[in-house]
Formats: sequence, structure tokens, C-alpha cells
Amino acid sequence: MGTRSKPNASADGRFAYEGLDRAIHEKARLGILTSLVAHPEGLLFNDLKELCSLTDGNLNRHLAVLEEAKLVTTHRPAKRGRPQTMVVMTPAGRRRFQQYLNVLEQVLADAAASQPQAAVTRGRVAPGLSPA
Amino acid sequence: MGTRSKPNASADGRFAYEGLDRAIHEKARLGILTSLVAHPEGLLFNDLKELCSLTDGNLNRHLAVLEEAKLVTTHRPAKRGRPQTMVVMTPAGRRRFQQYLNVLEQVLADAAASQPQAAVTRGRVAPGLSPA
Repeated sequence: MGTRSKPNASADGRFAYEGLDRAIHEKARLGILTSLVAHPEGLLFNDLKELCSLTDGNLNRHLAVLEEAKLVTTHRPAKRGRPQTMVVMTPAGRRRFQQYLNVLEQVLADAAASQPQAAVTRGRVAPGLSPA
Repeated sequence: MGTRSKPNASADGRFAYEGLDRAIHEKARLGILTSLVAHPEGLLFNDLKELCSLTDGNLNRHLAVLEEAKLVTTHRPAKRGRPQTMVVMTPAGRRRFQQYLNVLEQVLADAAASQPQAAVTRGRVAPGLSPA
């Protein structure tokens, strides 16, 4: 019988958050994917660059990671006089992004569970709320 | 007048998420901080290691980043026969972690806004809820 207050052994790995896929979790890529999920028809390179406040070089680098992970595809529409790269989230990317978001929800729930004073934040259920 | 469907120019930087502090956002450190916020009295090194499924080396490396960023402090309680490092979140760390969580909430809100079928998820306000 130990005397120190060790957290329950069954909680090992409780805060490992394996589901936070590194290809998605990186800050700039998280912004890129959130932009794209809001634009299912895809976004032009320059628009994505502005929405995410990225340089050409940074956006290119992050798109390469996302393409390698099969989360997005890029193509240049053939008909344009000055073709621009179009970026589209793949169906698999959409599924994996949703799984990632579910883990983020869990992080927020874990953090909120220990901070009663912070439980009432934007968009979350406050104690005392019930269906109207 | 362009013909392409450029997102509103006022949305530039809309998905930049500058508030996702890199010291906090890294996956392992996010787990460490979520563990610590749930244990305001602090956690022993070995317990933190198990909760986050980290090796000694990885936990040491991430704690060094968190200490450098003044998000946590570490100390060795003097009274122990075999002193173990205790890790505690600083008051500033607690404030900055809450600010970070607010940005995560925004990411989830942005992603959910474009996916109506995902808007009602665990712990979030569903349409039709109002104060009891």
C-alpha cells in the first residue's frame, strides 16, 4: 500500500492522445484542413495562402506533407489561361480529419472536467442547461 | 470582376490560428499539460510518464521545453528517501493553456460549421438548448 497519491493504474496512457495524427495536428496544416473542410469544392493555392496567412514556400511544404499522407490532392485546371493549383481534401482525408476532431473534443472534455470554473465556455453545454 | 469564387477578402488569416502556441500544441506536451491541469497539486515524473505513455527521455525533453516556456515548474521534494521529480503547472501556464483551449474550441467550431451532420457532438450545445 503506497502512501503517495498515484493516479489509478488503469489510467496509464489516458493522456497519450494517440489519435492526434501528426500530419494533421501541426498548426499550419490544421488551418489548411479546416479551410478545406469548409470548402468541399476545393480552394485555389492563393486563396488558401491568404486564409491561412502562409507564404508560398510554407504552403507548398505543408501541401507536400498532406499529399504524401493522402489527405489532399492538388491539380491545375486545364482550361485556365494562367493555371492555378487547386487543392481538394480527399474522402479519406475528410474521414481522418473527423477522427482527429473527435480526439480534440476529448482533449477539451478532459481539460474542462478538471476546471469547473472553465466549463462554461463558448459553445459548450453549461450546467443547468436542458432541452428547451 | 473575377469569375472565380474567391473567399471573402476579409477572411484573410481566418484559419491561421495564431493562438495555437507551439510550446503547448505539440501532441506530447498537450497530453502533459492536460494531465497537469487535472492534477493541480502536481504529478510525479513517473506517473506523468505513464499517463502520457512517454519514455524517460521524451518526457525530460518535453518538460525542458515547458519549463523554458514557464508553463511548468519541477522540483524534488526534500523529505523523500528516494526523491522523485514533481511537476506542477504554473499559474501563468494555467492561463495560457486556457487561452489555447479557447482557440481549439474555435477550430472545432469552424470545422463543425461546415459539417452540419457533425455539429451535435459530445459536450457541445445542440440547437434547441437554452437555460433551464
